[in-house]
Amino acid sequence: MPYKDFSALNATTRLAELAGIPYDLTRPDALNVDRFKTLKSSACGFDLLFATERLDEAVLDALQELADEAKLVEQFMAMKRGAVLNRIEGYAGEERQVLHTASRDVFTEEPQAPEATTKAKQELEKLRLFLDDLAQGRLVNAKGESFTTLVQVGIGGSDLGPRAISLALQAYTLPGREARFIANVDPDDTAAVLAGLDLSRSLFVIVSKSGTTLETLTNEELVRSALTQAGLEPKQHLLAVTGEGGPMDDTGRYLASFYMYDYIGGRYSATSMVGAVTLGFTLGYGALMEFLRGAWEMDVVGEKVDIRSNLPLLMALIGIWNRNFLGCPTCAILPYSQALSRFPAHLQQCDMESNGKSVTRQGRAVDWKTGPIIWGEPGTNGQHAFYQLIHQGTEIIPAEFIGFRRNQRGLDIEVSKTTSQEKLVVNMLAQSLALAQGKEDDNPARRFPGNRPNLVLIAEQLTPCQMGALLALYEHRIAFQGFCWNINSFDQEGVQLGKVLATKLLHIVAHSGTKGQGATVATSVEEVLLEQAGILR
Amino acid sequence: MPYKDFSALNATTRLAELAGIPYDLTRPDALNVDRFKTLKSSACGFDLLFATERLDEAVLDALQELADEAKLVEQFMAMKRGAVLNRIEGYAGEERQVLHTASRDVFTEEPQAPEATTKAKQELEKLRLFLDDLAQGRLVNAKGESFTTLVQVGIGGSDLGPRAISLALQAYTLPGREARFIANVDPDDTAAVLAGLDLSRSLFVIVSKSGTTLETLTNEELVRSALTQAGLEPKQHLLAVTGEGGPMDDTGRYLASFYMYDYIGGRYSATSMVGAVTLGFTLGYGALMEFLRGAWEMDVVGEKVDIRSNLPLLMALIGIWNRNFLGCPTCAILPYSQALSRFPAHLQQCDMESNGKSVTRQGRAVDWKTGPIIWGEPGTNGQHAFYQLIHQGTEIIPAEFIGFRRNQRGLDIEVSKTTSQEKLVVNMLAQSLALAQGKEDDNPARRFPGNRPNLVLIAEQLTPCQMGALLALYEHRIAFQGFCWNINSFDQEGVQLGKVLATKLLHIVAHSGTKGQGATVATSVEEVLLEQAGILR
Repeated sequence: MPYKDFSALNATTRLAELAGIPYDLTRPDALNVDRFKTLKSSACGFDLLFATERLDEAVLDALQELADEAKLVEQFMAMKRGAVLNRIEGYAGEERQVLHTASRDVFTEEPQAPEATTKAKQELEKLRLFLDDLAQGRLVNAKGESFTTLVQVGIGGSDLGPRAISLALQAYTLPGREARFIANVDPDDTAAVLAGLDLSRSLFVIVSKSGTTLETLTNEELVRSALTQAGLEPKQHLLAVTGEGGPMDDTGRYLASFYMYDYIGGRYSATSMVGAVTLGFTLGYGALMEFLRGAWEMDVVGEKVDIRSNLPLLMALIGIWNRNFLGCPTCAILPYSQALSRFPAHLQQCDMESNGKSVTRQGRAVDWKTGPIIWGEPGTNGQHAFYQLIHQGTEIIPAEFIGFRRNQRGLDIEVSKTTSQEKLVVNMLAQSLALAQGKEDDNPARRFPGNRPNLVLIAEQLTPCQMGALLALYEHRIAFQGFCWNINSFDQEGVQLGKVLATKLLHIVAHSGTKGQGATVATSVEEVLLEQAGILR
Repeated sequence: MPYKDFSALNATTRLAELAGIPYDLTRPDALNVDRFKTLKSSACGFDLLFATERLDEAVLDALQELADEAKLVEQFMAMKRGAVLNRIEGYAGEERQVLHTASRDVFTEEPQAPEATTKAKQELEKLRLFLDDLAQGRLVNAKGESFTTLVQVGIGGSDLGPRAISLALQAYTLPGREARFIANVDPDDTAAVLAGLDLSRSLFVIVSKSGTTLETLTNEELVRSALTQAGLEPKQHLLAVTGEGGPMDDTGRYLASFYMYDYIGGRYSATSMVGAVTLGFTLGYGALMEFLRGAWEMDVVGEKVDIRSNLPLLMALIGIWNRNFLGCPTCAILPYSQALSRFPAHLQQCDMESNGKSVTRQGRAVDWKTGPIIWGEPGTNGQHAFYQLIHQGTEIIPAEFIGFRRNQRGLDIEVSKTTSQEKLVVNMLAQSLALAQGKEDDNPARRFPGNRPNLVLIAEQLTPCQMGALLALYEHRIAFQGFCWNINSFDQEGVQLGKVLATKLLHIVAHSGTKGQGATVATSVEEVLLEQAGILR
């Protein structure tokens, strides 16, 4: 299908006109009952409240036109069916399908990409048997004890998503099980994690699609060395998640291997074996499947053509309105749920690595803004920190609040006639309103300009299924935006140059006469810098 | 002293001219040996390498003029000596001194603000005796056992700084000691922390200057209730850090009280008792004092008039160059040290709450940009995540790298002739260079535009003393920028409106007929929203 450039879409002209006079949220009756009722959309247990965005029916109509004209849902369907979307026309690239949705398209008799889903089912079945062996005591350590800890060793896509989701669902952990994570090549990261472990009862899952990720292989060596020093056989404690037939697909070195495939990008891999092994270990196979089911249900929602019923598409378009027409360079993700404390970091990766691009799918330079800077921390904590700038700073920051009506764990307390959970949710709503309406004051330091666009995403409870839906919601929001901007959201050429330079500098360090020992970088920073200046061009 | 508006400073005209043709880092010889040697500044163990910023000698001269004309060092000295800088002329406000530096001005016979430093010394002495009682076994639990865990209960400034620093220095923890943190009003946050504790051997330090912070008081109740249910006497496990004579200064309810003062803002309070109690517990009094000494040494550096010797001032001015003249809305803090993983979150608070303002110290609206959006995550993790956008996205993101030549813990491993620590530092330098120089390529998707401004801050090792210096470096960077922008960096009026609205909404929830029980927010979100729409104006 021929892709149009974003700026060549007719709907963008109309949207640019409308952006001249965006909806004024500070007018006396701007936030009326009718608006709250109308600007609300629901799917998979989530209510999306967007009355506090600077838009109206005319903008929504134009956004629908934009979606139709850019064939966003058609592109989404092509993605799910296995089109080679990870490419730049006429130039060398990954040339891959984009099939993370296939990893959870296992709840229907008619999956969109049958071959990939068959493979996903095979891996899930391998995992089910593996988890069953652990649960039934058939797979134990050398002393016959059960394994209590699973440590995921990976970085980027092999770390952030699984870590964020694992933390989000910690309340549902099986008794006697826990997950830990090692990512950074910083040896202190590994040392800190290893220091807190009973190695004899720990499994390590090494995650690298290529089997060549520098950080992960280095940390694997640190882990192997620690196991050996503790008198344990590394092979009995290590699992691999890697590409079939790759360098890490080696039963001589790993207790078991689970496969990931080229057509699932790292940042979209949380529902593949990259996330499933750890989540299955801590939550059990049943809860893991609930998580996948939630994601799958949102995948189906993404097929709807009407933007008001298609939650990820609607959020994508609201984001484009704020980014391209109201000119906001960032977007804050503000979960009112401590369990989601690392979810913004996962989205930061997923969004910025996908849409931080300046070249179209035809290799032309874009003349419009693409992906914003994504950042955020949980509320209410953030209210006592950076919200000052969101309310009164000189940058407008679109905010996305995520909350739940019920908490995960039983503990709560009523103080001044409201529970903590009520305080949490009410604070979220209060912030949404405060940002939108603002407030006049005779004291200029107490004046709030308002018109700070934001939306609220709220569900009953953060369960495994709801987490799956939330993950897929954002995955597709990102993909829809990439389709609309006519960029390839699925490669990451921008990480290469740093790798190349690092390799050159490491060569200098490895062969320099001043090479130090152990944990010291003996070659001073300056020496390296000065030396490189001549050779790296 | 009469403050000038930023846009009224003569130096800004010159800087705006220079910004028309900023230094081009992508030219073949742009990053030469001479430049690396010249654009380097050192203090308190840190080397600041800023050859990879888009500036030259002419810009530095103009920035020196800006500093002189705006009397930045004079204002800094006034701050240290106790001037009432937390105010807006002619309008009601906090009307307070700004004396966080006094809390560490204890290493000289001639402190700048003697009265405040005397009080700081008194609290430090109280803390020393308290820690001694713990160490000598005079202060134990009901069973005569030592306390192993200190849980800090606070939010915002009473949480983020102490948490970040505690994590940064975890490698130096005394045997048998640990710190934990509870902040969010989300009851799941408290539940998750309490679930992992031996309550009988835990102390809780409740931190609130006013003694009225909603989240903290609510979490204190949850803690008290958990202690009581475990058959323990809450008073024997609770400490208070609060204002002298305030509602929490009550020996009937707390084992001990340590004081904080009005003239130390929450986000600048890490070197007061707000941070000292927890750091003293985990690190011991000696290491705590080393941390304070590092901060104090940087406080002294901040007095220098020459911007090339004054590290915080130089960083402030480079930030202003990027923000106001090169037009960058954000700034990324990228520590190559897993121990600093929460330091960006602390700076996000400290910077954005301080400088996210739109009103001058005379109550006029600013017509220039103030504080940027601060965000970041540790490298090398980020390289596998959001760096794609920093390299190839449509927004320019000034980056600040922070690294150390040696790691904290002994563990390291050599793979391919380099240690993990070497890989870590070399990756940081490679990113700095890659962002600056960019790279041409026939494949447009593999083209790197370069000219992405960044700096590197590097020291030998992240010790308590070095951490103190790093903290103070950023505190003063922020203060200098606030002085230059002629804003009050020390109030936070922007957090008020959300509080007011939350109180109103909570009143509705508390008195609504549909009031639920326990952990459920029975009044649906929409109901609350609709109801408020009529009454909150």
